[in-house]
Amino acid sequence: MINVGVDLGGTKIMAVLAEDGVILQKAKKSTPKVGTPIDVLDAVAAVIAKVDPDERALAIGVGVPGPVRPGTGVLPIAKNLPGWDHDVNVASGLSERCGNRRVVVENDVNVGTFAEARLGAATGVDNVLGVFMGTGVGAGLVLDGKLRQGPSGLTGEIGHTYVAFRDFTDAVVGRGEVEDFAGRRMMEARARARHAAGESTVLIDLVGDGRMKSSTWEKAIEAGDPMARAIIDDATDAMAAAIASAIALVDLELVVLGGGMAERLGEPFRADLERRLAARAFAGSAAPVRAAALGDTGGALGAALRAEDLE
Amino acid sequence: MINVGVDLGGTKIMAVLAEDGVILQKAKKSTPKVGTPIDVLDAVAAVIAKVDPDERALAIGVGVPGPVRPGTGVLPIAKNLPGWDHDVNVASGLSERCGNRRVVVENDVNVGTFAEARLGAATGVDNVLGVFMGTGVGAGLVLDGKLRQGPSGLTGEIGHTYVAFRDFTDAVVGRGEVEDFAGRRMMEARARARHAAGESTVLIDLVGDGRMKSSTWEKAIEAGDPMARAIIDDATDAMAAAIASAIALVDLELVVLGGGMAERLGEPFRADLERRLAARAFAGSAAPVRAAALGDTGGALGAALRAEDLE
Repeated sequence: MINVGVDLGGTKIMAVLAEDGVILQKAKKSTPKVGTPIDVLDAVAAVIAKVDPDERALAIGVGVPGPVRPGTGVLPIAKNLPGWDHDVNVASGLSERCGNRRVVVENDVNVGTFAEARLGAATGVDNVLGVFMGTGVGAGLVLDGKLRQGPSGLTGEIGHTYVAFRDFTDAVVGRGEVEDFAGRRMMEARARARHAAGESTVLIDLVGDGRMKSSTWEKAIEAGDPMARAIIDDATDAMAAAIASAIALVDLELVVLGGGMAERLGEPFRADLERRLAARAFAGSAAPVRAAALGDTGGALGAALRAEDLE
Repeated sequence: MINVGVDLGGTKIMAVLAEDGVILQKAKKSTPKVGTPIDVLDAVAAVIAKVDPDERALAIGVGVPGPVRPGTGVLPIAKNLPGWDHDVNVASGLSERCGNRRVVVENDVNVGTFAEARLGAATGVDNVLGVFMGTGVGAGLVLDGKLRQGPSGLTGEIGHTYVAFRDFTDAVVGRGEVEDFAGRRMMEARARARHAAGESTVLIDLVGDGRMKSSTWEKAIEAGDPMARAIIDDATDAMAAAIASAIALVDLELVVLGGGMAERLGEPFRADLERRLAARAFAGSAAPVRAAALGDTGGALGAALRAEDLE
């Protein structure tokens, strides 16, 4: 079965043409920075046409950066896409642009997790948490071999789970959710607050007023920067607590760790997270942590697999 | 379909004979305090014989106070049952004692949640968290209309989810898990530590060196005791954080609240928990909290329903 899969992100649009999980064609382009959802849909359709000019694919799967209203193909909001502050039916909008083929729309983290469970680091495992660390922290759940969708389309918001339920005096730490400690946006906010209070750090030397990327954190750790180390230790511990909680609640066999931040921090970060998870896990419920195996085509491949799965 | 359901607890054994969810007969007796698992199984068989002397039931369901190894009927450990520190096959042990009928064994909180979803406060709702507060805090999950069992039989251990991932200076607070704040055993430990440090409380006036029961906490709250109020406020907030996290991770429509502690604290506690949950919930993901509707026969009824469901 040949299908198209698209990973629609805030920075780039990646599309693959895949046959039974094997990538035949691959293309990408930048996501429009300005304009409306119509411009975004046009851009997605253009990338689809690049990988599948002859419309060989039966169906098209799309991973989108936001919660999808279940069973509708509607993405109501996407902070990282231009002008996307109202309901847009991605399924019908793309189907019109792509020869009226069937379009399956799903949250990007969900399709990434699904791809890892079918073809990547969690192949053959039935109960999996996929955790992706970047600007924020998101997750997907595969339970009894099936991707969990949930009644509202908001499954896997591990970034919004609590690891600290008291209010902190430090306003930067927010509400005590995982993302307040382990999301790159809030990690930068904490570093800047500590720097403003007089602490020096390579992080600021590297970027000045610019944005701290995953590579910035990688370089600071390599340089032995104490502040970067402390903030990443906090992030690791918050992740360990949240993952231990997820396992205790849902009963899971394996954790797959992906996303730009986790990739940059690499094996030492994965190993430290696994160690802290084992220390926190309830009576024998610890799970191994494996690095995501599919890299930056994982999302698009997962979307293609979903299109096939739901045929 | 007529089945027997048994709720095997640390204090009492409750059995029902039920036809399509309607209780025909009901009986209970005290759980043996000393002896071995054999004595416990004998006692369970005796209660089953009381509600079903003519062996009308096709199958027998049993809810047990511990994790069941999936697909085996084996309960490996039960802290609240005498001598239960090794694998015991409850399914085959009871089947032998009960005319070789089929026996289905399941965790007690799971069957309690299942009963509420089928016949109680969550009837007709497909995605439900059942939370039960007593000595500890446990939960069950119904996802897409099915009871979640999980690969290891440990689903629903919400008492072991983290709400405070830092170590506390107060040793009584343990590891920052929900049970450290909202389990009756740890709530008593905290009250005794504060009392030992010089703070007065009606809780100690009521029980002296005896055990604080749910009714003790109820009386102290009615008397306006400030320490009891503060400890229960902490418990409520910890529960709200853990439930908000569970909803963010799994996507749930309804929370059912049961267990001795929740029953005694009643409507004010439920309403306060619901309010705090709404304040903590991520973007529109708050769920209503309903009091469990089936009372102390819920577990036995749920066990009977499971026996039927798995026939």
